[in-house]
Amino acid sequence: MEQITIQKTETAREKPDQANLAFGKHFTDHMFIMDYTEGRGWHDPRIIPYGPLSFDPSTAVLHYGQATFEGLKAYKTREGNIQLFRPYANMHRMNISNDRICIPQIDEEFCVNALKELVLIDQDWIPEAEGTSLYLRPFVIATEAQLGVHPSRTYKFIIIMSPVGAYYPQGINPVSIYVEQNYVRTVKGGTGFAKTAGNYASSLKSQEEAEKKGFTQVLWLDGVEKKYIEEVGTMNVFFKIKGEIVTPALDGGSILAGITRDSTIQLLKHWGMPVNERKITIEELFTAEARGEMEEAFGTGTAAVISPIGELVYGGRKMIINDNKIGAVAQRLYDAITGIQNGSIADPFDWITRVK
Amino acid sequence: MEQITIQKTETAREKPDQANLAFGKHFTDHMFIMDYTEGRGWHDPRIIPYGPLSFDPSTAVLHYGQATFEGLKAYKTREGNIQLFRPYANMHRMNISNDRICIPQIDEEFCVNALKELVLIDQDWIPEAEGTSLYLRPFVIATEAQLGVHPSRTYKFIIIMSPVGAYYPQGINPVSIYVEQNYVRTVKGGTGFAKTAGNYASSLKSQEEAEKKGFTQVLWLDGVEKKYIEEVGTMNVFFKIKGEIVTPALDGGSILAGITRDSTIQLLKHWGMPVNERKITIEELFTAEARGEMEEAFGTGTAAVISPIGELVYGGRKMIINDNKIGAVAQRLYDAITGIQNGSIADPFDWITRVK
Repeated sequence: MEQITIQKTETAREKPDQANLAFGKHFTDHMFIMDYTEGRGWHDPRIIPYGPLSFDPSTAVLHYGQATFEGLKAYKTREGNIQLFRPYANMHRMNISNDRICIPQIDEEFCVNALKELVLIDQDWIPEAEGTSLYLRPFVIATEAQLGVHPSRTYKFIIIMSPVGAYYPQGINPVSIYVEQNYVRTVKGGTGFAKTAGNYASSLKSQEEAEKKGFTQVLWLDGVEKKYIEEVGTMNVFFKIKGEIVTPALDGGSILAGITRDSTIQLLKHWGMPVNERKITIEELFTAEARGEMEEAFGTGTAAVISPIGELVYGGRKMIINDNKIGAVAQRLYDAITGIQNGSIADPFDWITRVK
Repeated sequence: MEQITIQKTETAREKPDQANLAFGKHFTDHMFIMDYTEGRGWHDPRIIPYGPLSFDPSTAVLHYGQATFEGLKAYKTREGNIQLFRPYANMHRMNISNDRICIPQIDEEFCVNALKELVLIDQDWIPEAEGTSLYLRPFVIATEAQLGVHPSRTYKFIIIMSPVGAYYPQGINPVSIYVEQNYVRTVKGGTGFAKTAGNYASSLKSQEEAEKKGFTQVLWLDGVEKKYIEEVGTMNVFFKIKGEIVTPALDGGSILAGITRDSTIQLLKHWGMPVNERKITIEELFTAEARGEMEEAFGTGTAAVISPIGELVYGGRKMIINDNKIGAVAQRLYDAITGIQNGSIADPFDWITRVK
């Protein structure tokens, strides 16, 4: 792959108020782009000023959703170091997503370097307050201008970056979850294990209806039997039942292999608390609750890291988990993962990639 | 809704060779656009010169696939009339699709008028040779520039148009179909009944693998039991078994309610050959074939109208249908529908909307 060319901006963008950072609304001065052309591969990697993209109205991504994305964060440590959390895992997962919808493979190592170069150039944009970070959004879009339903012959891989505030500015707040019984996120043989654009459009309706009922997120059941737990909103989900920590197994192909999920499993194993990855039914959760054995529930994801579940409603049934407070395991995981991410505690897993 | 403003192009685009029209590669001189803003509704309907659209890199459609589309055709009759085939059905279906992924409703009547106005302005682009037409592509895309996963607060509804050649320039050719057993198109509770962008990205991999094996299209089975027939590629599917014409029922919510499918059902009923809409298993097809009762199979869709199926392969089993020739029912349907579309035969169903 060629060298990344760099064209710096001449007009710096206005930085948002650090005390009031929303998610994904403000973007840094620069972005990374490279192009793919059939027969030539990926080419023209470049960092250029952040700005609009121009598309023919027939461009494939606008009609057929052939697009994948990733999300990860850059952190500034107290010592002034800049670091990324598991960027190789994100770039590897992007290739899994790409394969599922016929997008050509990216060079994972090269793309991690692109992330690093871009973060370095816009390092002044990394917020420094507790819990804040710079969100990095790599994505690939199909750019061929034609309406035939077949894989595009041209693509763009793009990275944009957005400073984001603390997910829990008032301390960690357990969420209330509505168990979705009508809509299905995906099914075995579909695209559930991949971060494809269309998966997210499909999830909007359920989320919107749950919010109208006063819930924070939905819990997805499997699409075949509607009884096995899959994910919570856009997070993976864990339960502690009578001392056993469990999470849905990935082998059905309908659950995203979350990087925070994997970090959680590795950390718990490291602490001598192995996670049982297996099928979990919604009935099992209510049986455990009735027996007083439901000890903790939490979601894992890049945005919130750990998101405790305080309330779960399934049809006419409702359970309150751990008195609607964060549990000890969730708190320990949150402290450990965010501590490794922001550099305040050691990283025994080689998860950190230093930018500077 | 306001009047449509019209800004005509000053530089006419080059028209493609009428004898070599591909599908969806050349576009006419103008396009229709209107915008949606939360709290204000759809506004600024306009016909402007065909040209590129500019998007912030964080635009929702590029990340979360919140987009729907339709496809229909305009025809020039021998008498010089210009007509559309069932445009109200397309605009109505677009609203069903929009609802599924939280896109605001369009004014169906207004959008049919927009189609008519646009076709009238670019009427010189409608090809005139037998079997050709002007393909119309209305689509809606989410345009809010932010990365939060929630319904966009702004959208664009756009119509672009492309002259397309005859689908069967050498006469109708039956297709060979591979029954997909690994990938699933969609499932009950998902988006299968809607024309959402993501549905098409999800289907690319299966189609690509089938083509590599030498097949034209795939036949999709249901995502739950993997035994019920759903669709063929991007078409609905019909079978004639021992005199009974059957097609998969729509009530599972995973099959697109095709407009050519509906036209086929209405025509057959009109001819005294009612269609049984019911569940059909893949085993039933092979049993019928073994008994010599499989008489015809064909797909229905806007692009091909009627596409006879000559060969069907399921695992290690293969059947040849009607000696790999088009059947009498398929031929009669093809002649009737294309005849009504191009104005050479009368329209007893009020399917035609006259533009001029």
